[in-house]
Amino acid sequence: MRIGMLIIGTELLQGKITDANTVWLAQFLRPWNLRLRMTMTTSDHNEDIQAALQMLYQRCDVVVCSGGLGPTADDITKDSLAQFFGKKVIPQAGARVVAEENYARFFRTLAADHGYGYLPEDFIALNNPSGFAPGLWFTENKRYLLAAPGVPKEFRDMLTEHFPKLVAPMMKSGGVINLLNFRTRGVPEERIFKELAPGLWDELSAFGAVSSLPHVLGVDIGVTLEGDVELKTARVQQIMRQSPVAPHIWHEGHESIEEVIVKKAREKNLTLGFAESCTGGLCSHRMTNISGSSSVFWGSVVSYDNSVKQNLLHVNPGTIQQHGAVSEATAMEMAKGAREALGVDIAISLTGIAGPLGGSTDKPVGTVWVGVARANELKALRFEYSGDRETLKLRFSQIALYTLLDQI
Amino acid sequence: MRIGMLIIGTELLQGKITDANTVWLAQFLRPWNLRLRMTMTTSDHNEDIQAALQMLYQRCDVVVCSGGLGPTADDITKDSLAQFFGKKVIPQAGARVVAEENYARFFRTLAADHGYGYLPEDFIALNNPSGFAPGLWFTENKRYLLAAPGVPKEFRDMLTEHFPKLVAPMMKSGGVINLLNFRTRGVPEERIFKELAPGLWDELSAFGAVSSLPHVLGVDIGVTLEGDVELKTARVQQIMRQSPVAPHIWHEGHESIEEVIVKKAREKNLTLGFAESCTGGLCSHRMTNISGSSSVFWGSVVSYDNSVKQNLLHVNPGTIQQHGAVSEATAMEMAKGAREALGVDIAISLTGIAGPLGGSTDKPVGTVWVGVARANELKALRFEYSGDRETLKLRFSQIALYTLLDQI
Repeated sequence: MRIGMLIIGTELLQGKITDANTVWLAQFLRPWNLRLRMTMTTSDHNEDIQAALQMLYQRCDVVVCSGGLGPTADDITKDSLAQFFGKKVIPQAGARVVAEENYARFFRTLAADHGYGYLPEDFIALNNPSGFAPGLWFTENKRYLLAAPGVPKEFRDMLTEHFPKLVAPMMKSGGVINLLNFRTRGVPEERIFKELAPGLWDELSAFGAVSSLPHVLGVDIGVTLEGDVELKTARVQQIMRQSPVAPHIWHEGHESIEEVIVKKAREKNLTLGFAESCTGGLCSHRMTNISGSSSVFWGSVVSYDNSVKQNLLHVNPGTIQQHGAVSEATAMEMAKGAREALGVDIAISLTGIAGPLGGSTDKPVGTVWVGVARANELKALRFEYSGDRETLKLRFSQIALYTLLDQI
Repeated sequence: MRIGMLIIGTELLQGKITDANTVWLAQFLRPWNLRLRMTMTTSDHNEDIQAALQMLYQRCDVVVCSGGLGPTADDITKDSLAQFFGKKVIPQAGARVVAEENYARFFRTLAADHGYGYLPEDFIALNNPSGFAPGLWFTENKRYLLAAPGVPKEFRDMLTEHFPKLVAPMMKSGGVINLLNFRTRGVPEERIFKELAPGLWDELSAFGAVSSLPHVLGVDIGVTLEGDVELKTARVQQIMRQSPVAPHIWHEGHESIEEVIVKKAREKNLTLGFAESCTGGLCSHRMTNISGSSSVFWGSVVSYDNSVKQNLLHVNPGTIQQHGAVSEATAMEMAKGAREALGVDIAISLTGIAGPLGGSTDKPVGTVWVGVARANELKALRFEYSGDRETLKLRFSQIALYTLLDQI
């Protein structure tokens, strides 16, 4: 099945917002082993929308359309779709019911002659789990069209609710699937499948579609199972757990590293904190993006200036003088100082060079020391990465979170 | 002039990366009062690329193409463009020179028969300021095509270097322009132009194209001047500075709030720090994204748990007990404690409720207190915003940075 996407979004073309729906949809489709063939973004000009529909409908089995379903004059998606399929927009009892339910959910009443009660002939209205505007569904000659609002939350919730029911049953598999995900770290994509486990991809492919998705300092290996999923799940897990990739798997599932850390630390009743220099607060920011992180994450010291390392983390001025701020010794003293100052079970420290200035031959831009302090342990590990300042901060924070996960 | 964009990016359609070039290009075009008419994303299938080129070339004067210019087998942009325009790919001395210079910049040598030395007939090779692959330029019947690598940095640097020289001179204005930008805060877009200064848009439009771009807790008002820019600049500045919007302007220009803070604090030789609770390190992370921030930003205490507020910031336990952690009194004690602990001139504190849990009738989710401590001043201000957890963290950090800027 070939999937196309039409984004009707003047604000995207004006640079007011960045499109987040495409990447979401592409990832959402992966469990069904479906891929986006092409996407187009147009403004709310009917002529452009007609041309785009023509192009996508010619080349795709399913067209997912986003945006332009609201109640204002520039929301012309419904009219454009009607024109394209040669339909009239008419009042439909089904659409009216769906819209009334959407309104009732927000304790509001739909006006008697509201446009949401109108649909092109033969179109079906879709419930909007998180907004007012109903979505649209139309099928003809084994071609499918699903139109959803462009607001990311509404788009996602609508696709999540309706796509599996509407599109998946049309697929060979009937839509019964299980997506296994193995989150690995420390080995680049090419090395995993070319050097480390050259037969793995083929071996896994016997059970379902295999995918490989790079993330920050790691790779997700996905296997989509159809049919007898229980048996296949067990077999795939066994293969992965016995493969040379096994030591690099840090999580089986779809959770983020922050979520896994919060969950595991909570289970073990551990409290956590950071001493951040080069990452400038990014580790703490990432941890606190997780609702409920306050039960395990107690706080951090962002010690950008050496004086803060000395005053709040009690790093010895002599250590910095002798070894430098970016050194094993300083990283260890920072972690130890943070653990005591914050009163936490495990403290992780970072000191490195995010650039673009400040590098040297010994310690090039991209060098980072990650320190670990816990009750009976104190150590620091050196890593080296490449990238611009923001990329390096992200990579530094990621290796610090991996290091923290190892400790829990 | 109508601008179209063709993104050749299999990885975008697979959901491996998010497109960042479209929003950048749209914003980049704004100074010339140019708009994107439509964009398309295809994979590296020639058939799809031909169809997309057909569509864009029919409807746009300029097509900007990104991706597929590298040296591997799936980089087919050059061949596809040649086919579309009915040209042959041939060795070109000009292309070879450009590629050799790109290589020399990285202290590398171009192989004798490297593909970078080949171009479609009548195409011109463009210098790549930050990579190896040359860009392409082709013009025919007042239609223009510019192809650049898809890597965001290379795409941006190439467009920035070549677009003004190649495309701008074709425009009515001859490309002599000045984009004035007034960054405002605290008043929503609708209120600025409907209530606060209803005549402003028309008044400014007499001098050039006016634009309004919302950002976090603020709006940028842009005016694009052509022709006698010096005189017009003075007049527009005068109008803005005397308008009811004037008190809301925090910067004239295009710099970010973090950049303005670093620049101004450096001029006044001030050092800065934060005590962050609800933002969990985001203010510090944002400040340290600016290269050179270390000269003014010394550090922060992320005091997520109350124990950290007490131990590191010396907040009185009685204050928290009596007024709560989210209160004027706690915010003030946090700021005072951070200023002393970090040894900085100005400390800003934040304590609030980012949700989704933890709100109450008195202090709903979205409430934040921002404290300010400097040599002779200690105060705290209350704000209330709406949004999900990540949005609220961003808004909280933005109001804290605004508050900090006011103090410098």
